[in-house]
Amino acid sequence: MSGHNVVAEAFAQTQYQVGGHGKRIVQVLKDVLNEVEGTVEGDMYGSGKLIADFEAKMAEYLGKESAVFFPSGTMAQQIALRIWCDELGLKKVAYHPLSHLEIHEEAGLRELHGIESVLLGEKDRLIQLEEILNLQEEIACLLLELPQREIGGQLPSFEDLQKISAHCREKGIRLHLDGARLFEILPYYQKTAQEVCALFDSVYVSFYKGIGGIAGAILAGSAEFTKQSKVWKRRHGGDLISLYPYILTADAYFDQRIPKMGQYYEQAQELAGLYNQCPRVTTWPEVPVSNMFHVHVELPKAELEPILAAVYAETGVGLTPYVREYDESTSSFEVGIGDRYAQVPKDALHTAFRLLHEKLQNL
Amino acid sequence: MSGHNVVAEAFAQTQYQVGGHGKRIVQVLKDVLNEVEGTVEGDMYGSGKLIADFEAKMAEYLGKESAVFFPSGTMAQQIALRIWCDELGLKKVAYHPLSHLEIHEEAGLRELHGIESVLLGEKDRLIQLEEILNLQEEIACLLLELPQREIGGQLPSFEDLQKISAHCREKGIRLHLDGARLFEILPYYQKTAQEVCALFDSVYVSFYKGIGGIAGAILAGSAEFTKQSKVWKRRHGGDLISLYPYILTADAYFDQRIPKMGQYYEQAQELAGLYNQCPRVTTWPEVPVSNMFHVHVELPKAELEPILAAVYAETGVGLTPYVREYDESTSSFEVGIGDRYAQVPKDALHTAFRLLHEKLQNL
Repeated sequence: MSGHNVVAEAFAQTQYQVGGHGKRIVQVLKDVLNEVEGTVEGDMYGSGKLIADFEAKMAEYLGKESAVFFPSGTMAQQIALRIWCDELGLKKVAYHPLSHLEIHEEAGLRELHGIESVLLGEKDRLIQLEEILNLQEEIACLLLELPQREIGGQLPSFEDLQKISAHCREKGIRLHLDGARLFEILPYYQKTAQEVCALFDSVYVSFYKGIGGIAGAILAGSAEFTKQSKVWKRRHGGDLISLYPYILTADAYFDQRIPKMGQYYEQAQELAGLYNQCPRVTTWPEVPVSNMFHVHVELPKAELEPILAAVYAETGVGLTPYVREYDESTSSFEVGIGDRYAQVPKDALHTAFRLLHEKLQNL
Repeated sequence: MSGHNVVAEAFAQTQYQVGGHGKRIVQVLKDVLNEVEGTVEGDMYGSGKLIADFEAKMAEYLGKESAVFFPSGTMAQQIALRIWCDELGLKKVAYHPLSHLEIHEEAGLRELHGIESVLLGEKDRLIQLEEILNLQEEIACLLLELPQREIGGQLPSFEDLQKISAHCREKGIRLHLDGARLFEILPYYQKTAQEVCALFDSVYVSFYKGIGGIAGAILAGSAEFTKQSKVWKRRHGGDLISLYPYILTADAYFDQRIPKMGQYYEQAQELAGLYNQCPRVTTWPEVPVSNMFHVHVELPKAELEPILAAVYAETGVGLTPYVREYDESTSSFEVGIGDRYAQVPKDALHTAFRLLHEKLQNL
């Protein structure tokens, strides 16, 4: 994602774009507001029917006693960990080395809450069950991200999850779910959100990944837990006088896209199959377990970029708007399936992959 | 503001309501979005034309090098104080005993940032110049709220402000402006925002008081200061993927209502005059210096409530939706002038005050 980016420029010119729901433009908000009466009263500092109804709906969907709407997951998750640390009188938590908290939050957990993190597992794979069972360090809380986004959206088996949950309960360790993409993994697990969340003491979900809202998050757990979370939400400056633009869009796109999560998952498998047929290309995971995966290409970024740009220009199909350097000899990018995939004609998609295959073969 | 509230109920039935801009309903957002093209791209994690343009506009209006949009003032101000404390290596700040940070933020400044506060002055009056000049304790930053909301919106003289600013610069104390209602005091000072802000190292302004937006704040200062504030914004969970619903409304209502601040100020003086003619009634301040003031009535809350409800029912004019107990023998409420005041027919308003006068006289 440099200043002059041939991939981004070629992508912007394509007729069909393979990932996501579409551009993050104001129309996303207008479409929802057009269906809402102007007389509807906004929420006021966490109160009012609009926010209470959505929180109740999410608590029920997640199978938790209570739920609180937050402006961001960054805020919701730091607060969840703080509550568990305070409860246990131990300012230490464990998570994956590529957790959002570790790499995208400017060390907020340490700087604002004084909480230390124990990194479990390695950067290029999931945390293993044994690493949790054998952990010697005392921790207040274990955070699991399902799926683990930065390694392509990988998942432990549901049986491992159950074992982790049982272990944490036995040891008095709180288990928190980073469910930024929880909705997206339910078709793979063939479980309800309640069944997954029952394994966790607290759960965060996001409304602008697979759901495609504008921003916002839900933090769910016991009534006592969410009551405390509201105090911390006020302290963080997240108890805005009104959050309704985010709530209305979260609610509308939740209803619209929850039924499509199975479709996105199947399409991700189909698309990953097309990638894996190309030489030098592998996807992480090889068979996706959600709507997302990462594409790894054994080619330096500077060599892959003009190839992709040429494929886009010749076929009108945009596969990814960017490429990043994974290491000196490998490039990678993330793919997330949304509404746009179904709009790409199959023959155009296959033409694009035939061309990509050919160009990678002829290197 | 109890469960069964005769004042709130009678207020809700009135044809004319004296304070504010109107109800906080979804139409407030729809009115703005109807004028925005759907193709406009949203901001992304603090970047993009939409947020950059508004931040530049506010930096210029406030006369500061740089400005950052925040979801809330609570977040913006804690961060401002944290930056100044870190810079000086001293975790102590001073403000009024009824500062927003002291009474509305669940001690976030202490709990998240470990910053101690020194309370200057008394709860029922402004901080005096001498109290600042004679302060013995070392502090990193002094926060001044202009106007001091919880005592009715009172202001020091501009000369005192200049002396405070000069003193702080001499002593190496950073001066921060809680300008939640900065726009509203400019007509009284007969100064530009730049002239007021030039006295301060950092400035926060809000977009849902006199401006009447949905939520959101600007924090302004030097480029180095705002750069640091963006790191803390990320840590607090305030660097939302998109803030545009707040930015678009802040911008639109700023343009719409900045030219009316002088009118609101004059109307507040007129309305305070009507209150002060009634027996047992005084306003704080006696002559408003902004669009706001507090009304104090020498009558217990339980006795004032049915009187107000009767006035509303008989005249169709709602003066306040609530009354609070100031002390055992005195009630009070806040008045803030917005667009609705101009819609109240003068004869209806005068009839309401004649009736209120009569009822208070005949006790």
